[in-house]
Amino acid sequence: MSDPTFNRSQLEQLISRRFFYAPAFAIYGGVAGLYDYGPTGCALMNNIVQLWRNHFVLEEEMLEVDTTVMTPAEVLKTSGHVEKFSDWMCKDTKNGEIFRADHLIEAVLEARLQGDKEAKAAAAGTQVEATVTDPATAKKATKKKKSKVVVVELKPEEKEAYEEILAKIDNYSGPELGEIIQKWGIKSPEAGNDLTPPQEFNLMFDSSIGPTGHLKGYLRPETAQGQFLNFKKLLEFNNDKMPFASASIGRSFRNEISPRSGLLRVREFTMAEIEHFVDPDNKDHPRFDEVKDIKLNLLPASVQLEGKTDITVMTIGDAVAQGVVDNKTLGYFLGRIYLFLTKIGIKTDKLRFRQHMSNEMAHYACDCWDAEIRSSYGWIECVGCADRSAYDLTVHSKKTKEKLVVREQLDEPKVVNKLQLEVNKKVFGPKFKKTAKAVEEALIALSEEGLQKLKDELESSEKTSINVEGQDYELTKNEISIERVTVTEHIREYTPNVIEPSFGLGRILYSLLEHAWWKRDNDEDRNVLSFPAVVAPYKCCLLPLSGNAVFAPVARDLSHQLRAKNISTRTDDSKASIGRRYARNDELGIPFSITIDFQTVEDGTVTLRERDSTKQIREKTEVILQVLKELSEETTTWEKVVETYPAFNAKEADEE
Amino acid sequence: MSDPTFNRSQLEQLISRRFFYAPAFAIYGGVAGLYDYGPTGCALMNNIVQLWRNHFVLEEEMLEVDTTVMTPAEVLKTSGHVEKFSDWMCKDTKNGEIFRADHLIEAVLEARLQGDKEAKAAAAGTQVEATVTDPATAKKATKKKKSKVVVVELKPEEKEAYEEILAKIDNYSGPELGEIIQKWGIKSPEAGNDLTPPQEFNLMFDSSIGPTGHLKGYLRPETAQGQFLNFKKLLEFNNDKMPFASASIGRSFRNEISPRSGLLRVREFTMAEIEHFVDPDNKDHPRFDEVKDIKLNLLPASVQLEGKTDITVMTIGDAVAQGVVDNKTLGYFLGRIYLFLTKIGIKTDKLRFRQHMSNEMAHYACDCWDAEIRSSYGWIECVGCADRSAYDLTVHSKKTKEKLVVREQLDEPKVVNKLQLEVNKKVFGPKFKKTAKAVEEALIALSEEGLQKLKDELESSEKTSINVEGQDYELTKNEISIERVTVTEHIREYTPNVIEPSFGLGRILYSLLEHAWWKRDNDEDRNVLSFPAVVAPYKCCLLPLSGNAVFAPVARDLSHQLRAKNISTRTDDSKASIGRRYARNDELGIPFSITIDFQTVEDGTVTLRERDSTKQIREKTEVILQVLKELSEETTTWEKVVETYPAFNAKEADEE
Repeated sequence: MSDPTFNRSQLEQLISRRFFYAPAFAIYGGVAGLYDYGPTGCALMNNIVQLWRNHFVLEEEMLEVDTTVMTPAEVLKTSGHVEKFSDWMCKDTKNGEIFRADHLIEAVLEARLQGDKEAKAAAAGTQVEATVTDPATAKKATKKKKSKVVVVELKPEEKEAYEEILAKIDNYSGPELGEIIQKWGIKSPEAGNDLTPPQEFNLMFDSSIGPTGHLKGYLRPETAQGQFLNFKKLLEFNNDKMPFASASIGRSFRNEISPRSGLLRVREFTMAEIEHFVDPDNKDHPRFDEVKDIKLNLLPASVQLEGKTDITVMTIGDAVAQGVVDNKTLGYFLGRIYLFLTKIGIKTDKLRFRQHMSNEMAHYACDCWDAEIRSSYGWIECVGCADRSAYDLTVHSKKTKEKLVVREQLDEPKVVNKLQLEVNKKVFGPKFKKTAKAVEEALIALSEEGLQKLKDELESSEKTSINVEGQDYELTKNEISIERVTVTEHIREYTPNVIEPSFGLGRILYSLLEHAWWKRDNDEDRNVLSFPAVVAPYKCCLLPLSGNAVFAPVARDLSHQLRAKNISTRTDDSKASIGRRYARNDELGIPFSITIDFQTVEDGTVTLRERDSTKQIREKTEVILQVLKELSEETTTWEKVVETYPAFNAKEADEE
Repeated sequence: MSDPTFNRSQLEQLISRRFFYAPAFAIYGGVAGLYDYGPTGCALMNNIVQLWRNHFVLEEEMLEVDTTVMTPAEVLKTSGHVEKFSDWMCKDTKNGEIFRADHLIEAVLEARLQGDKEAKAAAAGTQVEATVTDPATAKKATKKKKSKVVVVELKPEEKEAYEEILAKIDNYSGPELGEIIQKWGIKSPEAGNDLTPPQEFNLMFDSSIGPTGHLKGYLRPETAQGQFLNFKKLLEFNNDKMPFASASIGRSFRNEISPRSGLLRVREFTMAEIEHFVDPDNKDHPRFDEVKDIKLNLLPASVQLEGKTDITVMTIGDAVAQGVVDNKTLGYFLGRIYLFLTKIGIKTDKLRFRQHMSNEMAHYACDCWDAEIRSSYGWIECVGCADRSAYDLTVHSKKTKEKLVVREQLDEPKVVNKLQLEVNKKVFGPKFKKTAKAVEEALIALSEEGLQKLKDELESSEKTSINVEGQDYELTKNEISIERVTVTEHIREYTPNVIEPSFGLGRILYSLLEHAWWKRDNDEDRNVLSFPAVVAPYKCCLLPLSGNAVFAPVARDLSHQLRAKNISTRTDDSKASIGRRYARNDELGIPFSITIDFQTVEDGTVTLRERDSTKQIREKTEVILQVLKELSEETTTWEKVVETYPAFNAKEADEE
């Protein structure tokens, strides 16, 4: 798995040469963190999106919405993004170069540790290989930027301190990062200059909406908020039935301080997010049984707390029963995520689910698991699956005064004994004047306990008070009464909790490229990308044997029939040999090729070649088209096809 | 067509109630020009996009790319957007309210003309109805904002001047708009205050990329630039073969001064654009014959110049042959656009192609036709189809020094007699020092005529000069020589021209909603949206007769089978009567409904109802599923289905 022969730069060359994706604005010198998808990458992404939609949205009748990227600042203030969605950066005090503080410290300390290793080896007369990060432990590998290695031996206490800092690098606050920089004399790596103390840098792109310049907007950093804001309309659309899920596929933006690692850390990316709204008192899922026997590679928080990364293989049913995964809905989605990722071609042995430790989770989340995919960059978070509790709906509701709740008709009315507040409007208004509304709202917002306290005070001392925005307001029995009453409730009102599976599609696409790539016969020049047919950029490659004019009308006709069956096709009528063209289209991951030759012109048969096995069959065009349709929709397999139709032995070996 | 009974506000209520789309951030008070698509609108849009992709990209093996929204300023400076992509705005000098200058003048003058009409009618003792804009002439209707009507009679010369201004409103420059405001005493419509002179307001949202704050970026106003910048990689991907097309579907942004008319003028929208790269010397299209017999409603520039809007119905073949449409490739795309729009459900009698007049076109365009769709807002541009000549590739190439050309191997070498420039580097560099490079580039950029002039001067007076950025540089035969030579060329190098069909998908979607909407039996409450199955948000509605427990497993099983066939389904198991539910799902435009009743439980048959006719058939589930699959892929029609299977007479009329 941790394949030392994996040569990332060769894959990157392939990706660029066959235009899966490439740096955007390259002819203008490029902009870090922005990529354009070429025809193959775009088709691959479209197919992943389409499969995602079938697998999640259609399968569960989710309510897909498409909301705007441009978002007024107020919304993202409420959600907490304006205050908290930031990283710490330092500036070189002389040349102005900017670094992400944690990345910088990591790079410098790792270089020092490497220098120490080399110095000790030199002293012992041995050689040290350049550090190859072990993907098994390097989940933070995406953040690494090389720093110059100076061969200097470290004191034992230095070495120990550095290793401890690196292990905890995600947990430091900005000021703590500043102290580390100070204490360990960390400078700007190339220039060696002093650095400013770490400052917060918000990762949202900002802009201004409309001509006045007064309405600040941000480009959304996630698609989730648009779904929360539409909760009321969505619940209504769903005939007020719970639970239900909304979903959204779209562009999000993060103004990274220093983007790196290709598609893994970019400034603009496509996300697919689901918000599953569920009763907080019942997080079971009606279809849980369909996934309960799936075995997952789990890395629970408890194991990580012991400093280990050992995988526990467990069925989802057991994981929920034993409390490893918090609830059935969360478990259900972990199973569905697993099925989706493996269906598009992610290897099961390079896929694990890692639970967040409590210090990693947002304060409101009650459980969170990341689907991490292993690539040459280490284990990379590609899907997050969090139980966000009622946080988002609550904050937006509080801010806008719009009730974002479910009102459930109870099967049997419920008799409730509770405190009831009555406000005597006649005297309340005149007494509190302008602040009357705020005081009343504060009273209404009180919990059962709060009301009890007021009631007790009113009874013991004939007066009480309430604090509204730092100001105390005195209240007597004249203005309010609080009585214990018995009421029969027919409706239960609650704010739903949200389980959120959130997919970074670019990261998944990159991981898939790594998992799909291999070289035929270990030949440098014979790259193959073994995408499953369902996501392959093109299903079929159409190859006329040569430029001979007799092939043109046959190719035109066949191409027309392929389109009529919605089989996406790339025609390769260039002058290269058939073998050369097979090899070239293997690089695009095209699973099947149809070749038109002189026999085709005579008897209407064509050959169909499968990419991975390079085996072929030869049948009448109608048969081949039908087989191809089934193959590209994955309703049959190549194994079954070769059982049914005799193998055709072409001279492919020679030709290639 | 110009239906006076068309009640737009009823349609808008339907759109909002069934959540096709709604103002974004509504619970925060909304932001003008930003809309969220709900589940039905989103599914409708996804289906339109998918059909677009099949119709254009797959059909012609176009190279689809997905490029970034965030664009560095330099790119949009080169393309001309930073300088020219703007509207004129005026500000109320007292309250700061902002108006788009041309819209404001329109609104005020139209109100005055209306006031004049009413005053005259009052004098004559008759009544004037509120102006109903005639869609046939009001192509600018989207821009209208109501202004208060004051009943005052106008002088004849005033009336005439106003009408002339309104007719030419699109042709005025900012200063001219300012003069009109001045001359005719136009004030801020509601407050009556003075206005500032018109100022330019760039319509692009700006932002800043990265942490330094020094790299300015814009959100792209169109997807085209990303395609031009990738031209070289795309040509290479296409094995250097011409012509070819790239395509892109994605979000674009325009910071409108005053967004209005729902989806017709918004700040964020989805576009689909094709850039077809073609040899400037041969704009034929290999598949032109497939469209040449299609008849289009044409409104050529020549007719408009006469102040008329009469439609010419003409085949595409004739239009190109007679020079009405500039070339076959442009004609081919007009035909393909027509086929696409009518396939999704746009009515042919509400679709016309209007040619731009020369003052409307960008200076570089050589011909441009808009597909305009008629709705209650008038004739609205929904697709533009322009021949952009070599403009974009040329400016980007010039700016970046990257050659964006096609190199075509000539079948027969060509002997060319031409002037050849040689620079004597030995003396050239020392003489011009720092400016040597700029001077050399200026020389290389000279045309044949330019070189001839220099050559003549050198021969007559032994010296000549060249102007570089306002400075003359003297040249003698010592530094350069210019000789007439005869060379044999094997390669022809040219910058391709671009034909660009550009689709505003939101506008098309809104127009489709208007065209698809009708009321059954003229009943206010029985809305139907007759989308063609291929774009309908859901293909099938699954209706268990009641909440009786016997239906649940049947519904679950059927729903599973529908999903397995990729037939998008909405299950409506609410408690309303079947008739009520049929009506409710007609509003969503769902073409087919399957009802599960007691007979289903007994004999496995279900009914299938068609939306428009409300007719039903009853067959075994397997048969219905197969029929439904063919119906939703439009490989059969409902007419054929009812010929094959006997009609089933349910009590729908009663139930509804």
